[in-house]
Amino acid sequence: MERVESHAVSGGVQEVWSHASSTLGCTMRFGVFVPGGEPPAGGFPVLYWLSGLTCTEQNFITKAAAQRYAAEHGVVIVAPDTSPRGDDVADDAGWDLGKGAGFYVDATQAPWSAHYRMYTYVRDELPALVEASFPVSAARSVSGHSMGGHGALVLALRNPGMYRSVSAFSPIVAPTEVPWGHKAFGAYLGSDRSAWEAYDACVLVGRASHRLPVLVDQGTADGFLEEQLQTHRFVEAAAAAGFPAEVRMQDGYDHSYYFVSTFVGEHVAFHAAALRG
Amino acid sequence: MERVESHAVSGGVQEVWSHASSTLGCTMRFGVFVPGGEPPAGGFPVLYWLSGLTCTEQNFITKAAAQRYAAEHGVVIVAPDTSPRGDDVADDAGWDLGKGAGFYVDATQAPWSAHYRMYTYVRDELPALVEASFPVSAARSVSGHSMGGHGALVLALRNPGMYRSVSAFSPIVAPTEVPWGHKAFGAYLGSDRSAWEAYDACVLVGRASHRLPVLVDQGTADGFLEEQLQTHRFVEAAAAAGFPAEVRMQDGYDHSYYFVSTFVGEHVAFHAAALRG
Repeated sequence: MERVESHAVSGGVQEVWSHASSTLGCTMRFGVFVPGGEPPAGGFPVLYWLSGLTCTEQNFITKAAAQRYAAEHGVVIVAPDTSPRGDDVADDAGWDLGKGAGFYVDATQAPWSAHYRMYTYVRDELPALVEASFPVSAARSVSGHSMGGHGALVLALRNPGMYRSVSAFSPIVAPTEVPWGHKAFGAYLGSDRSAWEAYDACVLVGRASHRLPVLVDQGTADGFLEEQLQTHRFVEAAAAAGFPAEVRMQDGYDHSYYFVSTFVGEHVAFHAAALRG
Repeated sequence: MERVESHAVSGGVQEVWSHASSTLGCTMRFGVFVPGGEPPAGGFPVLYWLSGLTCTEQNFITKAAAQRYAAEHGVVIVAPDTSPRGDDVADDAGWDLGKGAGFYVDATQAPWSAHYRMYTYVRDELPALVEASFPVSAARSVSGHSMGGHGALVLALRNPGMYRSVSAFSPIVAPTEVPWGHKAFGAYLGSDRSAWEAYDACVLVGRASHRLPVLVDQGTADGFLEEQLQTHRFVEAAAAAGFPAEVRMQDGYDHSYYFVSTFVGEHVAFHAAALRG
């Protein structure tokens, strides 16, 4: 593991590390913010942040301004890249498939299955590495934006007890029903749509046996809302399942990091409360 | 004038506008954040933000996360580009001269003098445009980063009464004494070094007849501190002149926007207090 960036920020330190990922078969980078001062007994709890299409680990750490809230609440934030990387990793000409578009699934179809295993990477390998390398506890929560909001909801709903809380900004809540999901899941998981359901938050919330706190923010001026996001599907699926989830429609906000930066403080506070519990 | 971006953020709106600048003889862009809600009688006061080498209007508006503080304090923030732009504007192969490196001077030497008049643009044309186009008052303060910190200090020290307060992050305080300034001033202003003094904050603070609140933050881990910034020169020049200036050395911080984002809330509060007065 090699440290490639280190910056003082908000009384703590924002670092970027690279490491050889055995799950993905390539070198990966992730950002990690560690608050200043002594960690609590047992270490800082960890919020995992999953970014959206086209992003690397840089977008969140440079644009969300979450560090000040993480410092205030004593939370480490880990922000991985969004796909495997490298010259021998399969890619697509579009920005919504391949590099920068891992969709947090374990691909089963060639050529993607050779490297595209972001679900297992984020769930297993990355937390094991983080917990062995930084002053953190095993308490985890997860959040993300757009494709990363989808990843966060799927990880939390499929793994009872693994995360204390989950939140999302502008998530793709029903990938099996929208064009982004059709393209990505068709490529990564194949044409059998029953295999897609394991990565669809609206399906998963209907099957969930375990409740955890859920917070979703969605801007009403988001240009992807109608075609790709369809937030109402998650509201309806959660209601039908009797699963409490706070979904907030934020008037006039779009899909950008201006939206994320506006509400990320509330999300960090939401997770910090669950992580302390 | 044309609006090219508009995003809701922190309860207000972050916009980017383009306009034909008569001072610079080219099309220019600037960012403007306007808080939400009704402006006070007379309009919001304005903080001008001047960015550093290689920057456009984007760096500050996407990375500093100042909007939440501007919203809280009821301050408009205007962030111009750092040089004239366009195919017919002179440039240099280096990143520290030409486009992205206007140094907030009015160039007197060919080929630069045709367009490079950022001092007059920021002092006269841009505020006139802003005050005619947005719900703002004539109350102004100015801040900036690195080359922009130099620009802020020079504008405030040379124009008594024009700005209520001035602050800077990692400013080039003595351009006549350091390599960045030698290169830029030699090109823009020529070899007669007496012409350079009108753009040197350390010289100007010794000549200033008018006092205004001054706040400077400088990171101790800034890789440019020793060769290009030399903050101690400003501390010494202000002390010799009996000019009160708060200069804070911030332990462990570097030259990046992580540093700016950490302290920008304190700078906005500092300016808001002066702008209310």
